[in-house]
Amino acid sequence: MMHWDEQTDVVVIGSGLAGLAAAIEARKAGASVVVFEKMPLTGGNTRISDGGLAAPGNYLQKRRGIPDSPELFYEDMAKAGLGLNHPELLKIVAEQASAAIDWTRSELGVEYLDRLDRFGGHSAARSLTTRSHSGVDIIKAQQACLRRLGGEIRTRCLLTALIQDGSGAVCGVSIQAGYKFAEEESGSKIHVRAARGVVLATGGFGSDIGFRSLQNPRLDESVGSTNHRGATSEGLVAALKIGAAPVHLSWIQTGPWACADESGYGKGARFASYSVFPGGILVDPATGRRIVNEWADRRQRSDALFRAGHACVGIVDTEGAELARQSLEHCLKSGKVKGFENLADLAAAYGMASEQLTATVDDYNRRIREGRPDPFGKPLSREVRLLSRPPFYAVRLWPKVHYTPGGIGINSEARVIDLANRPIPGLFAAGEVCGGIHGASRLGSCALTECLVFGRIAGRQAALPKPGRPN
Amino acid sequence: MMHWDEQTDVVVIGSGLAGLAAAIEARKAGASVVVFEKMPLTGGNTRISDGGLAAPGNYLQKRRGIPDSPELFYEDMAKAGLGLNHPELLKIVAEQASAAIDWTRSELGVEYLDRLDRFGGHSAARSLTTRSHSGVDIIKAQQACLRRLGGEIRTRCLLTALIQDGSGAVCGVSIQAGYKFAEEESGSKIHVRAARGVVLATGGFGSDIGFRSLQNPRLDESVGSTNHRGATSEGLVAALKIGAAPVHLSWIQTGPWACADESGYGKGARFASYSVFPGGILVDPATGRRIVNEWADRRQRSDALFRAGHACVGIVDTEGAELARQSLEHCLKSGKVKGFENLADLAAAYGMASEQLTATVDDYNRRIREGRPDPFGKPLSREVRLLSRPPFYAVRLWPKVHYTPGGIGINSEARVIDLANRPIPGLFAAGEVCGGIHGASRLGSCALTECLVFGRIAGRQAALPKPGRPN
Repeated sequence: MMHWDEQTDVVVIGSGLAGLAAAIEARKAGASVVVFEKMPLTGGNTRISDGGLAAPGNYLQKRRGIPDSPELFYEDMAKAGLGLNHPELLKIVAEQASAAIDWTRSELGVEYLDRLDRFGGHSAARSLTTRSHSGVDIIKAQQACLRRLGGEIRTRCLLTALIQDGSGAVCGVSIQAGYKFAEEESGSKIHVRAARGVVLATGGFGSDIGFRSLQNPRLDESVGSTNHRGATSEGLVAALKIGAAPVHLSWIQTGPWACADESGYGKGARFASYSVFPGGILVDPATGRRIVNEWADRRQRSDALFRAGHACVGIVDTEGAELARQSLEHCLKSGKVKGFENLADLAAAYGMASEQLTATVDDYNRRIREGRPDPFGKPLSREVRLLSRPPFYAVRLWPKVHYTPGGIGINSEARVIDLANRPIPGLFAAGEVCGGIHGASRLGSCALTECLVFGRIAGRQAALPKPGRPN
Repeated sequence: MMHWDEQTDVVVIGSGLAGLAAAIEARKAGASVVVFEKMPLTGGNTRISDGGLAAPGNYLQKRRGIPDSPELFYEDMAKAGLGLNHPELLKIVAEQASAAIDWTRSELGVEYLDRLDRFGGHSAARSLTTRSHSGVDIIKAQQACLRRLGGEIRTRCLLTALIQDGSGAVCGVSIQAGYKFAEEESGSKIHVRAARGVVLATGGFGSDIGFRSLQNPRLDESVGSTNHRGATSEGLVAALKIGAAPVHLSWIQTGPWACADESGYGKGARFASYSVFPGGILVDPATGRRIVNEWADRRQRSDALFRAGHACVGIVDTEGAELARQSLEHCLKSGKVKGFENLADLAAAYGMASEQLTATVDDYNRRIREGRPDPFGKPLSREVRLLSRPPFYAVRLWPKVHYTPGGIGINSEARVIDLANRPIPGLFAAGEVCGGIHGASRLGSCALTECLVFGRIAGRQAALPKPGRPN
């Protein structure tokens, strides 16, 4: 007989966007809830994210009369995912994204900037950004909401194992309480019974060099990551150990907008995401030429950088830089972004042939003005920004591990599936720990959306009393 | 205390090339060996393979003075694998391939045709083919050898679980003896103790629609497979269930040379592999134009077909068809390949614009004669065959699931690794059940080579007495 130190209805592992969404919904459904977070700080990668959420048909699109639809969103994601996406899961995200945004506004009081971005691979401007330009806005709002509802969050608590009953159903967890990150023996073990369900929302493994190297040996310690250091595989591994299906683990996403001159997510990345890629061009300093459609999806842009074999230079003019004014100021101070009065100075600073860079920019501008096709397939038209008004700004870009679209399989109720595609009773998952929704590559600003949508589903489902059992 | 029905030193699961190579080596190292095969017939996919084995520096290359090296082979495989290949494993295959071929000749008496093929993605003619043009030659020779050595093979015996001792080491297997394929409840359960080791050589999951759909929902029942029907995931799943690391499971290879007009591996596939791709061109009937470098690797060629969206037509002239004379005769009879006195008749038969097809062939021939670059990147020179001598032969091609490069992780001693990259004591694996060697895509004729190399390693390692334990 198992000795339980504690009991609750629903155990949530992980306190990022997905975990907190699950906890709130479970609590609202009447279940008692404890959230365990291994790090000293809540929020996971959400906390350091840019706070972008893509949602077709969202309130700001409606207000501005921008046509969009769940079907278009689905197609964009399936294209980036190379069609590997699990259709039933992707459909749910597409259909529930806009309502999930509304929920963050009405239920949590999250506020968004009055801007809509069209990120690479999206065929509409459909991405909202939180007011402070960071996911931390939502985390704070979720924590306040959960506190009001009487849910509990405990930090420094590492999941070490999922506990199954005789029938194979997950009925609790082993927790290392008082855990100090990366110190394996720290803390003390407790067993917590989950009378209704366990929700895994432990995020991805972008900072787990050992685990990611198994899938891609090139992503060893020499490659950076935009993730927080706690983006490791313990939760995923705990699920795999009890027979959860691994889905798309081999696909690991690198961010093409990562700045070569800083570690971690950094600030240059935001400037590149919000300014260089939407409004500028990416140039190989060795040739002075563009290397890719700057609006292509992340995989295509990263692949182009890897093919170049060295950091390339993102360039915008002063109008393009306005897309991310705050980042620009910050990055100019820290030296991540540099400003130049003319292209010749910019070329000189990066060892480029000035005439070639000028020719590249002239050709690009001419194609935009004349609406001529781009050799890289960018839909050049008068809607695309010209590179014409100095000063010009430049940032060196080289990919970092950003997101792990693979993880454990789930079904449309957020139930974790086993190797025979059957739900494992009592176990639910949401967010980056799951695989299947994004397929080969995730589009920008779709992670938080997915966390919200499936986090809510997981919480509601986990709160349902188990059939035929006392609670 | 476990009740064991039987005991042997080494248990081998699977009787394809890798399993039998392991059994022979284990027996030669002095261990008692039993091979369990779930199907009524031994040999797995090896039995229906074309019997091609790539090996750099093999005896026939030496005889003919063809320069090649393990380093070149490594580079070719790493390129096809998109650099995801586990370097230490790939290096072993590259370095031991030629010696493994010699072993099949000296130890098993396998005979090879006096031909060397250069298949797509290989930068040298380095692939041998067994005398009967089928892997069954090696299976028969291995079975005879194992019989001489006193090893045992039992068919209709399904692995249902790997059994671990208290320390986590694999110490035996659960077997469903008298199993009838795909009848879950057939046969009766026995437990077999493996005093020294268990070798998993259960092959890939190309015929396992449920398991492959988890990784790629498009590869559902509507997509064919070249594999035998027993290419299912039970062995792989048994290993994953005890915590073996899944590696590269998301990559599933389709064969671009699969014939659209027959099911299974078929005969058209061989004609396409040995004649159309080395000696001819691949044309989209909707446009009358080529769609790819016919010498590109399988992934690139399959992707080109998937982009076309329908079966395309492989075309060779009479000289190119001579590369696979026997196949040609067989396929002409069955109607899989059709012969035409001229290109106009061929075009008409497939609904192509005759002038466009003629223009395509003329342009192709002209580039070969003049050594001009190919828009698809094929290295056109006078060494490439012209399409000039009628009759012309044509076959309709559409990809089928062919190979699953992903599987469980192993180390350089063929020990299965767990999710933390540590060996699982007592468990070894070789062949298609493993992941990591081929990365994103396997080159043609490298599967049998890998089975031989790692099958032998697994057998030798599994036969070693366990440290500190009685045998």
